[in-house]
Amino acid sequence: MSGLVLTTFDWVPQLPRGYVRDIRVRWALEEAGLPYRVESVPFKDRKTEHFAHQPFGQVPWLTDNGLSIFESGAILLHLGERSEKLMPTDARGMSDTKEWLFAGLNSVEMASLPWALCMFSGQGGDNPIFKQFESFLKVSRLPHLEKVLAAREWLAGPFTIADIVMVDALRLVDRFEGLKDFPAARAYVARATGRPAFAKAHADQMAHFAAAD
Amino acid sequence: MSGLVLTTFDWVPQLPRGYVRDIRVRWALEEAGLPYRVESVPFKDRKTEHFAHQPFGQVPWLTDNGLSIFESGAILLHLGERSEKLMPTDARGMSDTKEWLFAGLNSVEMASLPWALCMFSGQGGDNPIFKQFESFLKVSRLPHLEKVLAAREWLAGPFTIADIVMVDALRLVDRFEGLKDFPAARAYVARATGRPAFAKAHADQMAHFAAAD
Repeated sequence: MSGLVLTTFDWVPQLPRGYVRDIRVRWALEEAGLPYRVESVPFKDRKTEHFAHQPFGQVPWLTDNGLSIFESGAILLHLGERSEKLMPTDARGMSDTKEWLFAGLNSVEMASLPWALCMFSGQGGDNPIFKQFESFLKVSRLPHLEKVLAAREWLAGPFTIADIVMVDALRLVDRFEGLKDFPAARAYVARATGRPAFAKAHADQMAHFAAAD
Repeated sequence: MSGLVLTTFDWVPQLPRGYVRDIRVRWALEEAGLPYRVESVPFKDRKTEHFAHQPFGQVPWLTDNGLSIFESGAILLHLGERSEKLMPTDARGMSDTKEWLFAGLNSVEMASLPWALCMFSGQGGDNPIFKQFESFLKVSRLPHLEKVLAAREWLAGPFTIADIVMVDALRLVDRFEGLKDFPAARAYVARATGRPAFAKAHADQMAHFAAAD
């Protein structure tokens, strides 16, 4: 298999469309202008071959010639090392990009995903667990991120893979009105999703799943 | 400031002792045999200087000569790039280490942390949100990880930073009896925490916080 191949599900329900993790990889590939093709695996009947590439039966994974990589964070890091459009090449810029990549995943999404899962499943309100996650996200994380975003255009200087992850995590919070008290975060999401590479990645994901209906 | 300096809190309550994230960095530094010193910042009154190094007011961060790095995942990656004892130097070994580092953080800990937070706060039982997280961890993640761990000693070939993260995430699940149906995961945790570098890192963290009581 030659070149870059992104594998995602053949179909998913309506609810997660536009938010399936392959969008992070599509977005990065579009920003970098790297040619790639997309392949599919069954959503409903996950095979041994699928688990050989992604041990948890999730998507996406990327093959780059002989190398197969799962975890969107690891894929983005790999692509960042291939393209200056995704990660600066100086030591400081590279280090800042990596720390913000992990911060997007493990400081912000670690708080936003449990919150969003509650919203997706219609739980919330006075449930004491929901209140705990609401506070984790809206007291311990977003106010601090808001200060950072109010003072800079992108997290690590130029636009990088760190912004792709952070914006995609925040998009899901925004979907459930979770950013209404955080104007700098909303402006950042709007600025990032206004980029042509995001629009292309989003449209391509929607078309990919719609084609299987 | 010269050499490697790890910064953590001056004190934390009893409950998280032994599990504060600086242990991941201490463990890696001990495995690599890299010399370092530990500095402290106040837990109770977090200053502007603290937020300048760690925008969310958390710990740890590491300074390596002029470079200041936050997020334990980013710090481990940085140390992995400095020492072959933490990450292989061949392309395949490096890529496998990175994907499993992200998998530990974003496939396993993304599910285990919400579950553990419920346990820490005494929530659980029939709470529908807890049941959702219980299923996320024990149906969608641990059975798949169990198959991987039953077939190999360490995640990426030799012991690496990926094992430090995965084991530390699983240790917290084990603390609340969450691994009882997963013998390969329990054996993996026992194998890893039996390493002298873990014992040293754990004892040093306990002594550091005890000294402030």
